[in-house]
Amino acid sequence: MQRIEVGVLGATGMVGQHFIRFLENHPWFDFTWAGASDRSAGRKYSDATNWRLDGALPASAAGLTVQECKPGNAPRLIFSAMDASVATEIEQAFAAAGHTVVSNSKNHRMEPDVPLLVPEVNANHLASLATQSRLRGWKGRIVTNPNCSTVVLTMALGPLKRFGITRVVATTMQAISGAGYPGVASMDITANVVPFIGGEEEKMQQETQKILGEWNGDRFEPLAATVSAHCNRVPVVDGHTVTVSVELLEKPGEAALIEAMNAFRGLPQERKLPSAPEQPVIYLDAPDRPQPRRDTNREKGMAVFTGRLRACPVLGYKFVALGHNTVRGAAGAAVLNAELMLSEGLLER
Amino acid sequence: MQRIEVGVLGATGMVGQHFIRFLENHPWFDFTWAGASDRSAGRKYSDATNWRLDGALPASAAGLTVQECKPGNAPRLIFSAMDASVATEIEQAFAAAGHTVVSNSKNHRMEPDVPLLVPEVNANHLASLATQSRLRGWKGRIVTNPNCSTVVLTMALGPLKRFGITRVVATTMQAISGAGYPGVASMDITANVVPFIGGEEEKMQQETQKILGEWNGDRFEPLAATVSAHCNRVPVVDGHTVTVSVELLEKPGEAALIEAMNAFRGLPQERKLPSAPEQPVIYLDAPDRPQPRRDTNREKGMAVFTGRLRACPVLGYKFVALGHNTVRGAAGAAVLNAELMLSEGLLER
Amino acid sequence: MQRIEVGVLGATGMVGQHFIRFLENHPWFDFTWAGASDRSAGRKYSDATNWRLDGALPASAAGLTVQECKPGNAPRLIFSAMDASVATEIEQAFAAAGHTVVSNSKNHRMEPDVPLLVPEVNANHLASLATQSRLRGWKGRIVTNPNCSTVVLTMALGPLKRFGITRVVATTMQAISGAGYPGVASMDITANVVPFIGGEEEKMQQETQKILGEWNGDRFEPLAATVSAHCNRVPVVDGHTVTVSVELLEKPGEAALIEAMNAFRGLPQERKLPSAPEQPVIYLDAPDRPQPRRDTNREKGMAVFTGRLRACPVLGYKFVALGHNTVRGAAGAAVLNAELMLSEGLLER
Amino acid sequence: MQRIEVGVLGATGMVGQHFIRFLENHPWFDFTWAGASDRSAGRKYSDATNWRLDGALPASAAGLTVQECKPGNAPRLIFSAMDASVATEIEQAFAAAGHTVVSNSKNHRMEPDVPLLVPEVNANHLASLATQSRLRGWKGRIVTNPNCSTVVLTMALGPLKRFGITRVVATTMQAISGAGYPGVASMDITANVVPFIGGEEEKMQQETQKILGEWNGDRFEPLAATVSAHCNRVPVVDGHTVTVSVELLEKPGEAALIEAMNAFRGLPQERKLPSAPEQPVIYLDAPDRPQPRRDTNREKGMAVFTGRLRACPVLGYKFVALGHNTVRGAAGAAVLNAELMLSEGLLER
Repeated sequence: MQRIEVGVLGATGMVGQHFIRFLENHPWFDFTWAGASDRSAGRKYSDATNWRLDGALPASAAGLTVQECKPGNAPRLIFSAMDASVATEIEQAFAAAGHTVVSNSKNHRMEPDVPLLVPEVNANHLASLATQSRLRGWKGRIVTNPNCSTVVLTMALGPLKRFGITRVVATTMQAISGAGYPGVASMDITANVVPFIGGEEEKMQQETQKILGEWNGDRFEPLAATVSAHCNRVPVVDGHTVTVSVELLEKPGEAALIEAMNAFRGLPQERKLPSAPEQPVIYLDAPDRPQPRRDTNREKGMAVFTGRLRACPVLGYKFVALGHNTVRGAAGAAVLNAELMLSEGLLER
Repeated sequence: MQRIEVGVLGATGMVGQHFIRFLENHPWFDFTWAGASDRSAGRKYSDATNWRLDGALPASAAGLTVQECKPGNAPRLIFSAMDASVATEIEQAFAAAGHTVVSNSKNHRMEPDVPLLVPEVNANHLASLATQSRLRGWKGRIVTNPNCSTVVLTMALGPLKRFGITRVVATTMQAISGAGYPGVASMDITANVVPFIGGEEEKMQQETQKILGEWNGDRFEPLAATVSAHCNRVPVVDGHTVTVSVELLEKPGEAALIEAMNAFRGLPQERKLPSAPEQPVIYLDAPDRPQPRRDTNREKGMAVFTGRLRACPVLGYKFVALGHNTVRGAAGAAVLNAELMLSEGLLER
Repeated sequence: MQRIEVGVLGATGMVGQHFIRFLENHPWFDFTWAGASDRSAGRKYSDATNWRLDGALPASAAGLTVQECKPGNAPRLIFSAMDASVATEIEQAFAAAGHTVVSNSKNHRMEPDVPLLVPEVNANHLASLATQSRLRGWKGRIVTNPNCSTVVLTMALGPLKRFGITRVVATTMQAISGAGYPGVASMDITANVVPFIGGEEEKMQQETQKILGEWNGDRFEPLAATVSAHCNRVPVVDGHTVTVSVELLEKPGEAALIEAMNAFRGLPQERKLPSAPEQPVIYLDAPDRPQPRRDTNREKGMAVFTGRLRACPVLGYKFVALGHNTVRGAAGAAVLNAELMLSEGLLER
Repeated sequence: MQRIEVGVLGATGMVGQHFIRFLENHPWFDFTWAGASDRSAGRKYSDATNWRLDGALPASAAGLTVQECKPGNAPRLIFSAMDASVATEIEQAFAAAGHTVVSNSKNHRMEPDVPLLVPEVNANHLASLATQSRLRGWKGRIVTNPNCSTVVLTMALGPLKRFGITRVVATTMQAISGAGYPGVASMDITANVVPFIGGEEEKMQQETQKILGEWNGDRFEPLAATVSAHCNRVPVVDGHTVTVSVELLEKPGEAALIEAMNAFRGLPQERKLPSAPEQPVIYLDAPDRPQPRRDTNREKGMAVFTGRLRACPVLGYKFVALGHNTVRGAAGAAVLNAELMLSEGLLER
């Protein structure tokens, strides 16, 4: 099969580094183009980058010359790890120039003509791209993946959607790796909890409604459920843990919900996309799981783990969910989106 | 004023050590009697105890000879830090023999004739002691304080009670010091979250209803509210953080709730009890507070801190609460209970 | 190539679990026999074991029936993860019965006829086995690997041996995973340092001298160097970091020492043993490496990382070393020992 | 006794905040003047400062108007918490204008006419101020305290000086609070060790020689000992732990060294200076102490704790030392220096 060249916008930042690590040895994609700020452009990637991730900088990336973030000779498929302060304009410039921009940035997520994808949950939202083309007049397109904590919540709620979700109260305990570098000061988080992450609760609440909602051919109908999020930072390296209370219209038994979680499959599984976990939601029976340090890295970080499903005196059901914030919640999410688009015929090889 | 001798049951364990540290330099109470298991009885306290708390073992305790846990020559006022596996029988033996047992153990908390006290919130539950005397035929009595996470929740909800609490969803992030010694294994909690604490959710749910309920002269009427708890262990040394979503019958503005929290006072404040915090619930305005490492030890660990009051899309209001689990949530709670009883004339000097 | 069946003594404990995880998918060895205490014997491995490691219990192990720790029908090649309190007798019983016991326990390490192996450093110590056979009259044999912190130190010093090591001062910062389960209490190590690990300093000092010494055909001549160890526990999950000051008879330039480290190879590399790292000692040029969380897991945990080589005003040279305590320092060390023996013809297939 | 007004240069930074907290309720000094960068000058202290320390900003400081860092109307006694990038010029301007500058900055520590004080160890170095006045022509003066890790080492070595210190190898495990704010990124230090702190080893080595050396009436004779430091950052909040191997000319028994540590007193104790610990070096007998989380805050953070004195096979003796890096190692050190100067008649009231 012919491989596809891909680029990364914001390639020298932390999220960009996660993209590069995730793309290493990808069976379909070759990372050949690194875009970054003018300050870095023209330098060797290994010189322009303070590699912050565990292990060594992939050799394939090290030698690339960093490019300015301008369309021109960039590959057709572009992943965006741009900072929100500049992503809007640059992503649109690439889309206008014919690139498919698969973005992890928040800027376009809530746009009425941009799909906010969790491929197992709402692959059919890709249908909105026709409207996007019509309205925007771009030769290319923009698709997005959700905020890291939203991914964990929506993956866990995906299997429950058919029972009629009406109310959700979620509390997150989020890892430090989600905050970039230098990110959270150690004086703030060592042996501590910070019960506030700027903008995070609003994102979780709105994005969840859009993802679990429907594209009605014309616009997104958000899920008619109220969602409340409490977002906290805890001293964990990778993996966002979420406690969830949920109200359902139907009142299935707990065993039925567990079965629904474990049996949940989507297009990525059906098409055996390379980054798709075999089982996207894995219910753990042990009474004290999932746990971030022990479970986050299983299934290459692409599955969401759930556990402790039990009765909630207030909303009916409650459980715990966990997912890898920089993999399933960021770089891996975007790459899976691109794989989905390719399998849907939305990207030429 | 004449000082009162006090004893501690389970004096060599972790909770017992917290009692001894908290009682050091107490203006009313002299710790003169240490009860522990037969294995320790007869030994010097300093020899029988592995002192696990920060700093050094108080000199006044070091030289005591550990006693068997039998009434006999023990002081009239006894604090119980007994392990739940043995507390029922021993506490009852002391009560029967005429001692006032102020217990931190869970065993009698939910008994229909035993007050479960948070002095600022439900001091009037002491009225149930008359019934206890009648039913049990004890010359003495047993009063209890709640589980450490319940204290934080009920102190924070106390000021809201008059608005009519109907539903509560709370998620805790609990410190390791709550689990005794050796308690939580470092392999379990270092850079991790454990989303399970055995029995904790049930305690928080039931105890909260009893504490916020009423003693109707005959029995306790639990608060007619549903309460759901998600309990998690996080790598924090002291201080339980709780995110709370709450539904109220009345719909006060957020400023009114903050004002209610800050203005909240109870008998301990009115009587200026020695361990009473001047302001029992302190609302912090900073957007990212309270935080356990930074706020737990303020006000000698006896106040509960709240913050981030805002609208909850599901239940109406949400906020964060924090309290010191081994002080306000254990030893300090019991000592405040004893001070309250003394000020109510329920203990002779 | 014919695969070899192997057993693990102490298979249900933490060290045993590390063996089982390390042996999963081993190209030469099949883990088919699990020995444990009488309490566990007869039960299914998955029932008898509280699996404490990240991820799930390997399926191949789960179904095994746990055996008593008696020779009989156990495989010829036995790894010992026995607790020191029982290892002496059991390991000797297996050796007497003809088994090759590759032990991680401390019991036989300093015996005058038992090789204490770091295969890259002192593979020729295997020659002592002839003496062992003669003296003990065993049909089998016992070989050992060092304590986890000793491995890191001796791997790092191995390349320097030819310059004449005369004095070594080493301070360790050791991970919690080295202490088993429950091991270190979280109250002891969270946001703390414990400057003491029972018996560790003596082990590091003595074992280092034996490993870097010579087998003279008759007995082990310890290296004529003084070694001083300061051992500390720090809140790190995996990976022991060691700061080393070393005095050498020759006074090579720092570049020569770095080159010696990077060029160091041994029999495991020459024979391409399956668990051998390609480059056993890897010098990292970055000014702030190696770091346990970032570097320990590289090279499958089998390499030792060094860095910061610079002048020591007292002993001449100083540097930092890091290795994976449960892999290179325990299970992986023993498996590499077994691979070495097989490649030396000391084990029949 | 008449109180003395004091100012703090760099009052809004982290070190400045430590000064302000330490000076709260000081029996001799009134903090009345806050100097900071031009950006902050003119604003209320509480507005210009992000208070990062535990607890609340002291009320006495909150209302001060921040001043430019120019002599003029500042108090005679000035503590400097200036950043090294600007301290040289500003501190000299204040000294020239007649102020006594008691500095925690590194800039003047190694100057040949500036005392680098640890009052218990080298109070007689104040004699160098006469030379400073003569050489510099300043109406005021500059005195300094050492780097935080140097304080711990020199306090612990002070009692051993009379035995003839010849060689020292020290490894530090330093708390994150020493690095300011935001300081160490949580991604760098959570569950990790960073074996490098820029410039720290050089400071420890040189400063120790100056402090333990002599002022010979003309210049400082450094101690004729070689000192080697390995400096590491560990995930601890407050308290630097140091392992020390030391060679002495005399060979006292270990009991004699312990006795020397416990009996060690200096001018601060003799004069009962308000910030002086009663016993400046406290040897802890427990086999696993001192520990930063448990011992750092004892004695108001002004004592240094030692433990585990034992034979070092290489240098003769080894032990562990611990001190509070932001108290005894910074703000408290400077305040004690000022108290010493006042008691020596070097400051008018």
